[in-house]
Amino acid sequence: MKWLPILKECSCKIRRAILPLFGTNEASKEFGVGAGGDTIKEIDLAAENALIQTLQNHKVSCTLISEEAGIKEIGSKPKSFYLTVDPLDGTTNAIRGLPFIATSIAVSKTLNLKDVEIALVYDLIYNVTYTAERHKGTLRNGEKVKPSPTTSLEDAVMGIDFNTLKIEELLTRLTPLLQKTKHLRHFGANALELCYVADGTIDTFIDIRGKLRVTDIAAAYLILREAGGIMVTPEGTEINVPLDPAQRVSFIATANTTLYENIRARLTEH
Amino acid sequence: MKWLPILKECSCKIRRAILPLFGTNEASKEFGVGAGGDTIKEIDLAAENALIQTLQNHKVSCTLISEEAGIKEIGSKPKSFYLTVDPLDGTTNAIRGLPFIATSIAVSKTLNLKDVEIALVYDLIYNVTYTAERHKGTLRNGEKVKPSPTTSLEDAVMGIDFNTLKIEELLTRLTPLLQKTKHLRHFGANALELCYVADGTIDTFIDIRGKLRVTDIAAAYLILREAGGIMVTPEGTEINVPLDPAQRVSFIATANTTLYENIRARLTEH
Repeated sequence: MKWLPILKECSCKIRRAILPLFGTNEASKEFGVGAGGDTIKEIDLAAENALIQTLQNHKVSCTLISEEAGIKEIGSKPKSFYLTVDPLDGTTNAIRGLPFIATSIAVSKTLNLKDVEIALVYDLIYNVTYTAERHKGTLRNGEKVKPSPTTSLEDAVMGIDFNTLKIEELLTRLTPLLQKTKHLRHFGANALELCYVADGTIDTFIDIRGKLRVTDIAAAYLILREAGGIMVTPEGTEINVPLDPAQRVSFIATANTTLYENIRARLTEH
Repeated sequence: MKWLPILKECSCKIRRAILPLFGTNEASKEFGVGAGGDTIKEIDLAAENALIQTLQNHKVSCTLISEEAGIKEIGSKPKSFYLTVDPLDGTTNAIRGLPFIATSIAVSKTLNLKDVEIALVYDLIYNVTYTAERHKGTLRNGEKVKPSPTTSLEDAVMGIDFNTLKIEELLTRLTPLLQKTKHLRHFGANALELCYVADGTIDTFIDIRGKLRVTDIAAAYLILREAGGIMVTPEGTEINVPLDPAQRVSFIATANTTLYENIRARLTEH
């Protein structure tokens, strides 16, 4: 089964569906609550419909695992493959016209994150495609990429997601790290920010809120690891979770082991 | 004196000079320390040289106030006009290939921020030009823009610069605000992030570190205020500072008065 050409076509169709809505009031029209618990917006629906339509056109059999639709079976043998997807990563950015949004699709034969075999993240604005196949490395627009060699916290460009109502608890844990940080960023599209670690654009991305859905990171997880980067739980163990729309994850993603150890040392200080 | 066409030409020439260096190792080659105290990088120099060359080609007389070059007189009557500039806002982004970088140029007849008459911020990646002339409003690629109507902290997309070694003090001040925040961002190019407030892409941008140079915000200050936005000190007073490469500023920039008051109320709680 040649998945990558189909996934690429899905992402192009999603781009065509959502760009006319990008940064418009229409994008944020609401359509009830999705399987993940968030409100579904017009632009999310447009992205998901484009994805499902493209899969159906290819007569693919699979089970879709998605924040909005929950679990949806497609075709005659839906248990053959699982597609864990976030058709539009960065919905708020898309509504506001902030140019950081992506499509994320992960293919697996079981319902476990560590069994993802093929992954695609597509930067919907810049038209950049990140793909990974297990044991075959990571490509950015068809060319091999690897993470950065940065090891010092002072030099590192660091993405951190701070968006939680339990901010005091989070800041207590992060303060020793933030004391050493000079280049903090957050672009608001977590799958894409993980791909930035994979290709060396930034050095680390940290989300230890316990809020992010596994649907958001399933593809980027393989992309980062196949590129040679690190992505583990805050405790340093493998992220061993089921591919389920309700599953949440926390992680530290870094370019290399030394940077990871420098971050861990600061995070265990508090 | 028709400044805007000259400033637009400067920004296009800067773009042409820096894009070949964007995201390359060459960009970060170092050339000593600038007037503002930071290391000057190859890509900063390329931007500043393109600016000065273009001004000289137009036989302009002015005094340049810049982070890198400090104070530099150009032409036969350099006291006629002051150009407060950041030829490349977002140097770290430019070196790493993060697509958020801008040119910032402010024109005034005195050395005071509140006397800036003409301003241009140019998004070097997206080719978007923000311009403002005093009492004439703000244009984005030639079309009038205004800030967003968002008033609630929960809905607001909020930019905050956390990059300071005095992080504990900063977090103590910001925590009551962060408790109400759901969409935090930081793109790493402060002039551009202020323009995002001006045109309604985001709702507020806050930098109360006391670290940012007036050269970085001189143009965006007029652009935001002419668009109808608010930009004041953390204490709520006018930002009344000299245009000097060593001058630092702190500010709260918001889309409207109600949002400003909601932010102020949280920041005075700690």
